[in-house]
Amino acid sequence: MKEQQMRVTFQPQGRSVSVLRGTTILEAAARAGLVIETPCGGAGTCGKCRVQVTANVNAPTAADERVLSATELNEGWRLACRYRVEAPVTVHVPETSLFGSEHQILATAESNVPKEVLPAIRKSYVELSPPTLEDDGPDLLRLEQSVGAFKADLPVVRHVAATLRAHGFKGTAVLADHRLIDFEVGDTRDRCFGVAFDIGTTTMVGELLSLRDGRELGVVSRMNPQVSFGDDVLSRIKHAATCAGCLDDMRLAVVRELAGMIDALCAEAKIGREHIYEAAFAGNTTMEHILCGVNPAQLGELPFVPAHARGLLVPAVELGIPIHHGALAYVFPIIGGFVGGDTVAGMLATRMDRIDGPALMVDIGTNGEIVLAHNGSFLAASTAAGPAFEGARIECGMRGTHGAIEKVFFDGDVRMEVIGNGPPAGICGSGLIDLVAELLSHGIVSPEGQLLSKHELPQGLPPAIAKRIQTGNDGDGRFVLFGGSSGRAKPGIILTQRDIREVQLGTGAIRAGISILLRKAGIGVSDLKSVLIAGGFGNFIRRSSAQRIGLLPAGIDHQKIRYVGNTSLAGAKVALLSTEARRQGEELARRVKHVDLSTAEGFHEEFAEAMLFPS
Amino acid sequence: MKEQQMRVTFQPQGRSVSVLRGTTILEAAARAGLVIETPCGGAGTCGKCRVQVTANVNAPTAADERVLSATELNEGWRLACRYRVEAPVTVHVPETSLFGSEHQILATAESNVPKEVLPAIRKSYVELSPPTLEDDGPDLLRLEQSVGAFKADLPVVRHVAATLRAHGFKGTAVLADHRLIDFEVGDTRDRCFGVAFDIGTTTMVGELLSLRDGRELGVVSRMNPQVSFGDDVLSRIKHAATCAGCLDDMRLAVVRELAGMIDALCAEAKIGREHIYEAAFAGNTTMEHILCGVNPAQLGELPFVPAHARGLLVPAVELGIPIHHGALAYVFPIIGGFVGGDTVAGMLATRMDRIDGPALMVDIGTNGEIVLAHNGSFLAASTAAGPAFEGARIECGMRGTHGAIEKVFFDGDVRMEVIGNGPPAGICGSGLIDLVAELLSHGIVSPEGQLLSKHELPQGLPPAIAKRIQTGNDGDGRFVLFGGSSGRAKPGIILTQRDIREVQLGTGAIRAGISILLRKAGIGVSDLKSVLIAGGFGNFIRRSSAQRIGLLPAGIDHQKIRYVGNTSLAGAKVALLSTEARRQGEELARRVKHVDLSTAEGFHEEFAEAMLFPS
Repeated sequence: MKEQQMRVTFQPQGRSVSVLRGTTILEAAARAGLVIETPCGGAGTCGKCRVQVTANVNAPTAADERVLSATELNEGWRLACRYRVEAPVTVHVPETSLFGSEHQILATAESNVPKEVLPAIRKSYVELSPPTLEDDGPDLLRLEQSVGAFKADLPVVRHVAATLRAHGFKGTAVLADHRLIDFEVGDTRDRCFGVAFDIGTTTMVGELLSLRDGRELGVVSRMNPQVSFGDDVLSRIKHAATCAGCLDDMRLAVVRELAGMIDALCAEAKIGREHIYEAAFAGNTTMEHILCGVNPAQLGELPFVPAHARGLLVPAVELGIPIHHGALAYVFPIIGGFVGGDTVAGMLATRMDRIDGPALMVDIGTNGEIVLAHNGSFLAASTAAGPAFEGARIECGMRGTHGAIEKVFFDGDVRMEVIGNGPPAGICGSGLIDLVAELLSHGIVSPEGQLLSKHELPQGLPPAIAKRIQTGNDGDGRFVLFGGSSGRAKPGIILTQRDIREVQLGTGAIRAGISILLRKAGIGVSDLKSVLIAGGFGNFIRRSSAQRIGLLPAGIDHQKIRYVGNTSLAGAKVALLSTEARRQGEELARRVKHVDLSTAEGFHEEFAEAMLFPS
Repeated sequence: MKEQQMRVTFQPQGRSVSVLRGTTILEAAARAGLVIETPCGGAGTCGKCRVQVTANVNAPTAADERVLSATELNEGWRLACRYRVEAPVTVHVPETSLFGSEHQILATAESNVPKEVLPAIRKSYVELSPPTLEDDGPDLLRLEQSVGAFKADLPVVRHVAATLRAHGFKGTAVLADHRLIDFEVGDTRDRCFGVAFDIGTTTMVGELLSLRDGRELGVVSRMNPQVSFGDDVLSRIKHAATCAGCLDDMRLAVVRELAGMIDALCAEAKIGREHIYEAAFAGNTTMEHILCGVNPAQLGELPFVPAHARGLLVPAVELGIPIHHGALAYVFPIIGGFVGGDTVAGMLATRMDRIDGPALMVDIGTNGEIVLAHNGSFLAASTAAGPAFEGARIECGMRGTHGAIEKVFFDGDVRMEVIGNGPPAGICGSGLIDLVAELLSHGIVSPEGQLLSKHELPQGLPPAIAKRIQTGNDGDGRFVLFGGSSGRAKPGIILTQRDIREVQLGTGAIRAGISILLRKAGIGVSDLKSVLIAGGFGNFIRRSSAQRIGLLPAGIDHQKIRYVGNTSLAGAKVALLSTEARRQGEELARRVKHVDLSTAEGFHEEFAEAMLFPS
C-alpha cells in the first residue's frame, strides 16, 4: 500500500498537519497540538469529540449515526475519534470539543493568567523625525523616545544609523526583553515568529507561532536522531562518556534535526528563518543537557545531580539554532536528575498550581514522570517506564504510525484497528495496553504476568482465541495477533512473554511511583480529584485498558481522568508567548520537591506489588 | 645619542613606567597616571611637587636647594618638576603632592562616592558540600547558595559540573553583574584584573588594574595607529567612507594595537590575559564609533549625530579584545557628535557635578572639549583645536618625547629645555605655547598673529633674539629657535608664520568656545571658581604662557587653575572599579547640554575676536 500524505487543516486555530491516509482526525489534531476532548477514550460513544468537516466529507460511520442527528450529519459533523482521513480536509473544531488546558492558560478569567500574548520579543514600527540642528540627539536615543529604553546589541548599533538614513528614519525595532536585537527596513510587525520545541527521548515536536498574536502556524514531528545512540536516557548518558566527541555528536545530531524541522516549518508557513526571534525548548534533564552541550555524566551516577537548574536564556547561535542572528533560546528549568523541563512545562501548561487538588499528572513517555499537587505543594518523581509504550523493546512493537495496531479487543476472536486501515505491520502503545488488558480479562495472562500454556487456559475461552496461544522456538509462550503459525519461519505479529514483562515493568514502575507520592502526601487514590494523562500517545490510551493492566490505579472515576496531550510542547509554547508565564514556570520548578524513587522508603515493596497485574 | 629606557617606580602607588633618560619625574608620573600638584606650572618655585628618591638620587638642582631644607635634601627629597631621570629609580610620592582628583573619586568622605572598590566583576572562592542522596540539588543551585543568585553563561554551564567533581567541589566563581562567566580551579581571587583605556585621536593609554583592591599594575601608552589614515577625526570619518573595508581596517588597526598594549601590560605585571575580565574604553565620539565598528559617516555631516549614546556593555570578544572569553567591554556613553565618552569620563573623574562651581574643564587634545558646570547643569562643546598642541601640522613640531623642546623662555637670548637634555629634534606643545607667548611679550608677533619683519621690530630687542628673525625661501618670516640660517638648505628648528596661524586657530577656537559657554550660562570669567586643564600634555603647560597666548582667558587667578591630567583614562578606571560610578557617568552624560559651536549665536564673532592674541 502506497503511503500517502493528506493535509488536514484545523479552523479556527489555523493549524495544519500532513498525516497518512487513514489517520483519525483525533490523532491528526493531537499531532497539530490540539487536544480534543475524549471522555470515552475514543470509543465513539460520548460524542464530545464532534468536529465539522467542511468539504469532501466521508460517509458517516455507525458511531456517527448513533451519536449525531441527521441535520448534524448533513452539515458535515463527525466524531473525530472515528473519522479516518481519506482526502485533504479542513476541519472546524468548536471550542466545546477542545480540552481546556490551552484556554486555561491563555484565555481564562483566572486572576494572574496572562490574557494577552506578551512575549519577550516585541516589534515596534517607528517613523522618527530626522535630526536637525536644533534636534541633534543621537540616533538610538531618538529611537528610545519612540519605543522605550533599551540596551543595544553591537550588530544593530553597527547598522542602525545607515538603515535609518537610507530609509527616511522609518523602520521596525525588534526588542528582546528591552534589548534591541535588530532594526529592520520597513514595517515588519507581521513577521514576528517564535518556535517551541518538545525534545523527547524518542520524539521531537516543534511548533511555529506568531509572537504578535499567538497564532499557530504549523507543527512538525520527527524522531530524535539520538535513538541511534540508544533508546533511553541512560544509554545516551553512557554514550556521551565513550569518546571525546560523543557528546557533541549527539548534540549536533539534535541540532541538525531541529534545523531541518525549522526549515520545514518555515517552508510550510512561507516565512524566513530570520524572522524567528526566539526558540523555547522543553525536554527531560538529559535531553536538555545534551542540547546545551552539557555533559550528562553525573546524571548516570548516584545521586543523579543535574548541572544546571534554572532556565537558561542564551543566544540561539550559541546553541547552533539557525534563526535570527540576535535571537534568544530559552531552555526550560529543571527540577532534578530525572524530572526535567518537560515536567515543568507540563505543570505550566496545565496550571497544576491552580487545579482543584489533590491532582495527579502522569506523563507517559520513555520515562514516566509523575507530579502530585496537594495543598499547594508538589511532589515529582520519574520512573524508568522504558520505551515499551513507544513500541521499542517489544518484539513486534512500533510507533503509532501507519500500519500500527492501535486498538485491540476480543469479541469471539481478536478484533483490531490498524492505522491506515491496511494490513498490520506491528503494534503500538495503545494497542499493546489493550491487548494485555484483554489477555488479563480472559485469564490468558495471570496476575503474575505469566502467559499461560495451552493446558492451563481457563474454561470457555473462544477456540479462535485459544488457537492463538502457541509456543515459540525458544519454548516460551506467545500470543499470535496476526498471521504466522507455530514453528514457522515467519511468525507474524506476536506478543511474547518478554513483551509482557516489559509492559509489567513499565506499568509497575509508574504505579509504584504513584503509590509512593500518594503515601508521601498522606492521601489515597480516592482523594484524587483529577488525573491528567500527558504525553504524545496518552490521548489514544483507553482508560479502561490502562486501569485493567494497572498503569493507572483502579478506583479512579473515569470522569476524573483527562487526556491533556503533549504538555511539554504546550508549556514551551506558553513560555514563548508570555514572559510572565515563564517566570511562573521558573517559580514552579523551584517549588517542586523531587522524590528519588530508587531510594524512597517502601518503593521496592510497592514496585514488587505493582508488578502484579490487578486480578 | 642612543635612546635609553629607564624604569621609574612610584610608591606607595605601586605603578611604574619606562621613560627616556632625561625625562622629568613630573612627566614620568603623569605617564604612570599620577597627577602631581604643580601650582607654579613646573617652574621649580612652589615646592608642591616634592618627592623622595630612595636610591641613586641625583645631586640637587639650584631650585631644589632654594625650596628644600638641607635635611630634606639629604633624605633624597627633590622637586619632581626639576628632577631628570638618569638611572632607574624608585620614587616615594606623598599624598600631599598628589592632585586631589583620584582621592576625591575613590577615597573622600563625600556622601555618595564609592569608598570601596565595587566593580562589576566579583570572584568568590567556594568549598561546597558534595551532593548526597539527601541533598541532591543541581550543581548551579548549590553554587548559588554560596555566592548568591546568578544567570549562567553557556560555556560555564558546560564545564562547571566536571570542574566541581574533579576538584572536590571547590573553586572560584567569576561573576559579572550577577552573571556567572567562569568557574575556575582553585582559589584565584588574587587573579582578578581589568584594563582601562583612553582612546585618543593621536595617543592611546591603557592601564591594568586589580579589580580586587583597585591597585594599579601598569600603564602603557602608544600612538593610535589610525594616524596613518589622517591626523584628526574628520579625516578618519572621511577615510571610513572611501572603501568598503576602510572602516574595518581602522577598527582592526586599533584592536591590534590594544591587543599589543594588553600583552605588554600582562608581561610587565606577570599575569595571564585570561584573568582580565573587563575592559573599559573612553574616547571621543568618532574613536568610540570606529572601535565598535560603527560607521562614523553621519558624524561628518550636519547635524553631526552619533549613532549611539548610552554606554555599550558588550562581550569583549565582539570587539575583538583578547581577554577572558566571557569578559565584558564597557564603552563610555556619548554626549553628542563631537563631545564623547572621554568628556564624560573626565567629568566623572573630576566629579564635576560636585565641584564648587561655576567650574570649567578644558581638555586639550586634537579636539578641545570644554565643559562648564554651573548651578547643577552642564554645557559642553567641542572645538577643532587641531593637532598643533600635539606637534602635528607644525613645521618642526613633535610629540612631547625625547628631543622635544618642552620649555622656552627669553633671557637675553632664547633659553630652552629639551626632553632628554640632548640636542633638540623639534618642539612639542608646551614649548610651542611658551615660544609664542615670549614672541608676543617681546613684540615680535603682533596681536594679529603677524611675525614682524626685521624693520618692524620694537626698539631695545636683545640682538641675539633679533638675529633669529629671518625670511624663508617662500618670503615669509620665520623665527629660528635652534641652528640653521636664512637661505640654507637645512633651516634648523624654526617657527613659521603658518605655525603661528595654527596656534592662533587652536587657541582662538578654544577661547571662543569658552566665551560662548560662559555667555550661555550668563556668567563671566571672573565668576569661575576653578578651571581644570585636562589632557595628556596639559600638565606641562605653563599657565602664564597659556594665558599670554589666550588659550585660557586672562583674569583667572593662577590658583584657580588646576592640572588634572588624563581624565579620560582616570574616568575609564573609575568606571571599571565601580558600577555605581558607571551609573553616575551614564546619568551625567544625559544631563549635559551639547552646544554646537558652529551654529551657536555669536560664535563667529567670538572666534574672530579670539583669533587676536591678547595685547
